[in-house]
Amino acid sequence: MGKNLTSRSEDYSKWYNELVVKADLAENSGVRGMMVIKPYGYAIWEKIQHELDVKFKETGHENAYFPLFIPKSYFSKEASHVDGFAKECAVVTHYRLKNDENGKIIVDEDAKLEEELIVRPTSETIIWDTFRKWVESYRDLPLLINQWANVVRWEMRTRLFLRTSEFLWQEGHTAHATEVEAVEEAERMMNVYADFAEDFMAMPVIRGLKTESERFAGALETYCIEALMQDGKALQAGTSHFLGQNFAKAFDVKFTSKAGKQEHVWATSWGVSTRLMGGLIMTHSDDKGLVLPPKLAPHQVVIVPIYRNDEQFDAVSKKVEEMMKDLRAKGVSVKFDKRDTHKPGWKFAEWELKGVPVRIAVGPKDLDNGTVEVARRDKLTKEIVSNDIISEYVSNLLEEIQENLLNKALDFRSEKTTKVDTFEEFKDVLKTKGGFIEAHWDGTAETEDRIKDLTKASIRCIPIDASDEEGVCVFTGKPSTKRVLFAKAY
Amino acid sequence: MGKNLTSRSEDYSKWYNELVVKADLAENSGVRGMMVIKPYGYAIWEKIQHELDVKFKETGHENAYFPLFIPKSYFSKEASHVDGFAKECAVVTHYRLKNDENGKIIVDEDAKLEEELIVRPTSETIIWDTFRKWVESYRDLPLLINQWANVVRWEMRTRLFLRTSEFLWQEGHTAHATEVEAVEEAERMMNVYADFAEDFMAMPVIRGLKTESERFAGALETYCIEALMQDGKALQAGTSHFLGQNFAKAFDVKFTSKAGKQEHVWATSWGVSTRLMGGLIMTHSDDKGLVLPPKLAPHQVVIVPIYRNDEQFDAVSKKVEEMMKDLRAKGVSVKFDKRDTHKPGWKFAEWELKGVPVRIAVGPKDLDNGTVEVARRDKLTKEIVSNDIISEYVSNLLEEIQENLLNKALDFRSEKTTKVDTFEEFKDVLKTKGGFIEAHWDGTAETEDRIKDLTKASIRCIPIDASDEEGVCVFTGKPSTKRVLFAKAY
Repeated sequence: MGKNLTSRSEDYSKWYNELVVKADLAENSGVRGMMVIKPYGYAIWEKIQHELDVKFKETGHENAYFPLFIPKSYFSKEASHVDGFAKECAVVTHYRLKNDENGKIIVDEDAKLEEELIVRPTSETIIWDTFRKWVESYRDLPLLINQWANVVRWEMRTRLFLRTSEFLWQEGHTAHATEVEAVEEAERMMNVYADFAEDFMAMPVIRGLKTESERFAGALETYCIEALMQDGKALQAGTSHFLGQNFAKAFDVKFTSKAGKQEHVWATSWGVSTRLMGGLIMTHSDDKGLVLPPKLAPHQVVIVPIYRNDEQFDAVSKKVEEMMKDLRAKGVSVKFDKRDTHKPGWKFAEWELKGVPVRIAVGPKDLDNGTVEVARRDKLTKEIVSNDIISEYVSNLLEEIQENLLNKALDFRSEKTTKVDTFEEFKDVLKTKGGFIEAHWDGTAETEDRIKDLTKASIRCIPIDASDEEGVCVFTGKPSTKRVLFAKAY
Repeated sequence: MGKNLTSRSEDYSKWYNELVVKADLAENSGVRGMMVIKPYGYAIWEKIQHELDVKFKETGHENAYFPLFIPKSYFSKEASHVDGFAKECAVVTHYRLKNDENGKIIVDEDAKLEEELIVRPTSETIIWDTFRKWVESYRDLPLLINQWANVVRWEMRTRLFLRTSEFLWQEGHTAHATEVEAVEEAERMMNVYADFAEDFMAMPVIRGLKTESERFAGALETYCIEALMQDGKALQAGTSHFLGQNFAKAFDVKFTSKAGKQEHVWATSWGVSTRLMGGLIMTHSDDKGLVLPPKLAPHQVVIVPIYRNDEQFDAVSKKVEEMMKDLRAKGVSVKFDKRDTHKPGWKFAEWELKGVPVRIAVGPKDLDNGTVEVARRDKLTKEIVSNDIISEYVSNLLEEIQENLLNKALDFRSEKTTKVDTFEEFKDVLKTKGGFIEAHWDGTAETEDRIKDLTKASIRCIPIDASDEEGVCVFTGKPSTKRVLFAKAY
């Protein structure tokens, strides 16, 4: 398979699909809509998981694990939740196969379940059924639980990482004694997600609230982080829900307050998924392939030896081993690509495709000169660097790359964010440059729907930091007090 | 809920079930046969995962992720595999629910899958279907892949951790150019498991080979580790399979050898699961609750303050904070239990139940004397220790406890392992002391089955280090060249 990608300008969607497969991140499986996450892609996901897990634990959460299957009746208990989730889902109806008279394997109709089981599309119902047993008194609160798990939502149109029938995620589920605490928790987790996106993924995000029609099924308020991709479309990268007492009431989860009264608890849930991988890819990558922020790169540095014979290889290798020791002492992860099955040029292209932040080439000439060649993936530039300072140089360079990626993405977003005051302008911006549109909206679901029908742009969020500003709705001319964020979205 | 457990001598099985729930490890869910792993239990599982994952990576393996669902037809491709696995399993037949005329949620019969999907009971088939695309040349080999995942096997009689319809595990799947390499891999992973069991779980295991009738469905050879529980029953704690070319042939996975020939690859697979939690519990715990080896304890040390008023609490806390700093500097994980909702005696019992290796109590008298009280969970003994040496003392004590638990378990196993030469003796040992029985066996499945029918004891394994010894089968009197290991098993 060739390493060349379709360019972004030629066909953005094709570029994305090719990149995901060619950079060894993921591929489609033999099961409709379900992906195989390949080792290189999974290594990035493991880093994402690890960093998030540290942040969850720092904020007092503990991990646990709940069943994959949820009895159908559980979904009926929270009315708005069932409409949102129990529809397009995988249903387990039998628990046995058997051989028919021809030896073919068929479903054993005698092994039909009395009640069908749903493969979890999200776990609120099974978890709240459990919380009932865990909560008795205010002393048991807050209950701060997270689960790393796979979930299934039957999607008709799927795309690797962005929308798959099975995906990996974490789902936090918390129970609190008061409304205030639950709202604080939902906001806290939105901020944890946003900080992670910016500090680790170098992906700037807008923190905001969803409109009523875009809320999670069963939530009173949905907080979200919204990122902007290079094609000018938005990506919802994480959500955090204030669930009020809806699930506590549906599953009868009460506690005895300090005052001795029986009260329903207050809830949140929040999640991010392998969808983040799609955001990571589409924020930074270029026509040569993936571009990884150093903090999430499985290998931050790859060293490629240049040699013509065994003697040269041995001399170069000796130098490389020293360099690797120094780099590792500085906490840099480094891979020595000494495969003898491929030429240096092939390896250069390979590691560019895979987005390794820094590439070092070392050949006999470098040994003579006491130098190495250092290439940075983000800018595709090269420097000759003296051996003496290489580990210091690389470690600074990695920080610079991490920062540069974030700044570049911030600049891109600024450039692609437009204030708009008329519907003509609104449509024009969408057509000519895309991106985020800041516009006034009259606050009704009807207007929101109409705009979406006419333009395919939806309200991504009401930004948390949107300032008060008198204005009129871009569509109806009715009064509005702040601008909201519109965009076409994944 | 009271903290007292049924004693092991009174009812071992009841003791186990109570301990798992009361020590906050796991509980049954509303879904038949599926468990909820509670935060404290999950924290132990995370430690197990982490240590194993490090070992897998050290031995060259990479993690990846494959689909949860497997098309029914995939199972038919490897004949012996389907009989072993595709029978008692969860079958997804539909992908949508709908409301009926009364608003009740029912399965939408229009959304019936053309081909049923099986929730993976193990992933050989879906993974080998993928390997076909990943392997072309000898340069692509070996392929050393591991997956951390949930699997479902429809079990009729379930017990928390030991046998549940859903469990968490890792499954390694590797492809090799030669038979020798694949056999080496299968042996290597058995040894990785055995070393982990002994070094971290302090659970001694016998390394061995399964007899033909006990082999994994589709394997040519199954390596295993077998542990002995305190009730004299064996627990299969991990298996590693040499699969020959069975899956490569079934899924047509070929490679071009160095010599330019097309050949089928050679395979292994290997796994351990949350069942290890059951082994950990039953190896060390006592009538007061869980006993954890320090290397897998979420908290190695718990500090309980003793005080009568706020002033005393503040003085004690100051001391404790210093001690925690010193302990953490030595890499000891420590928890300060400063809940004011419970008395010290209650906390002592709580942490005994939860198996924390070392408990430290600090009160006003200790402050005066410059001492603290240190209690060790394994021996239930206490010492007064001078403040000056506490971190050194505790850090040595944790090592001693880890070692003591392994030695105690080794002594128990020696005492419960009996060489037996007649069938009368065989039955008598089973009845009076249980444990492992070393006996000669004629090598036939028929004899193996007969013994199992008559005594419920099965051949756990043919130990790797069994020495050659002329003898006669304990049941048929036919000649035999080595003793095998019998036991009743979980």
